[in-house]
Amino acid sequence: MSKALDFLTEALRRLPGVGPKSAQRMAFHLLQYDREGAAELSRALYQAVDTVHHCAKCNTFSDTTVCDLCMDESRDTALLCVVETPADQLMIEQTLTYKGLYFVLMGRLSPLDGIGPKDLHLDKLVTRATDGAVQEVVLATNFTNEGEATAHYISEMLKARGMKVSRLARGVPVGGELEYVDAGTIARAMLDRRST
Amino acid sequence: MSKALDFLTEALRRLPGVGPKSAQRMAFHLLQYDREGAAELSRALYQAVDTVHHCAKCNTFSDTTVCDLCMDESRDTALLCVVETPADQLMIEQTLTYKGLYFVLMGRLSPLDGIGPKDLHLDKLVTRATDGAVQEVVLATNFTNEGEATAHYISEMLKARGMKVSRLARGVPVGGELEYVDAGTIARAMLDRRST
Ligand SMILES: [Zn+2]
Ligand SMILES: [Zn+2]
Repeated sequence: MSKALDFLTEALRRLPGVGPKSAQRMAFHLLQYDREGAAELSRALYQAVDTVHHCAKCNTFSDTTVCDLCMDESRDTALLCVVETPADQLMIEQTLTYKGLYFVLMGRLSPLDGIGPKDLHLDKLVTRATDGAVQEVVLATNFTNEGEATAHYISEMLKARGMKVSRLARGVPVGGELEYVDAGTIARAMLDRRST
Repeated sequence: MSKALDFLTEALRRLPGVGPKSAQRMAFHLLQYDREGAAELSRALYQAVDTVHHCAKCNTFSDTTVCDLCMDESRDTALLCVVETPADQLMIEQTLTYKGLYFVLMGRLSPLDGIGPKDLHLDKLVTRATDGAVQEVVLATNFTNEGEATAHYISEMLKARGMKVSRLARGVPVGGELEYVDAGTIARAMLDRRST
């Protein structure tokens, strides 16, 4: 009936977890009940693609070359915490127990998905960790199989370069994803972190 | 970290069925793995809001004043089938058993959601059904409580104006939504439609 509607339904399927029926319902909802929301989402997508880059220091999403947190001079430059995603970083920030800096992998090693060390840009992490200021790297990847394998790989890589490396204590439930763990558990795991 | 990312995450929550965690994951996926998809979705939304209107005759979404189906001179102008949504209309078209025209309500009567006869623009349906060409109105709203109530309301409204009104036969499972019913069942229900 409407080519523009078909185009929108197709485009909505680019979203993760959205199948043909969901896409159809979303398109219907937006056009019938929330055209203002559709226009706002259009602008937000355009702006994000145009504006959001990776922080030159910590690799997280940022609108500026170096993100606010990396620019914050009150943070402890001797500590570098490695996390998988910005959501994980946010969880750790919310515990208020960590005052160091971060490196955000934007993923994890996942051989089944074809994500190896090069895809994760681990060379960027090595450069960052060996800048002379960092004294300890805290590995805070998830306690899933892939997160553990990623922590192990990074640990070996950095220890071979003489770095001190620690891992969050296993207060985080085995198999658990940081994003879904309460702040208190993460806070204790941070305090109990152990060398690897 | 990124205002543009926060803005995008907020905007994604305007989609039906998308909560804060889903929105965060969608934003991450688009920016990390599919910026082209994000740009395409932005364009599709803009174009849809700009282009998609309601067909002046059948009320469905259309890029033109009157939609292609309503313009098709091979259709039987004596039959008018009333459906809730464009998806329902598509299901009926796929049965290849109906050659008449349509009126798409774009919803259903739903007192609990505050959707009454005025919100459904039933006056537009009355005008369409009483154009002189239509001989029979086939009610193909869903066989849910709200769909049945909508069919009953429209039936009384049109019969009071002397129209012949029929309802899809109950080959469609009770409580079933057309969109999820197989084409064969709908085809039989169309052939067995009864007067109301
Ligand atoms: Zn940064
Ligand atoms: Zn039409």
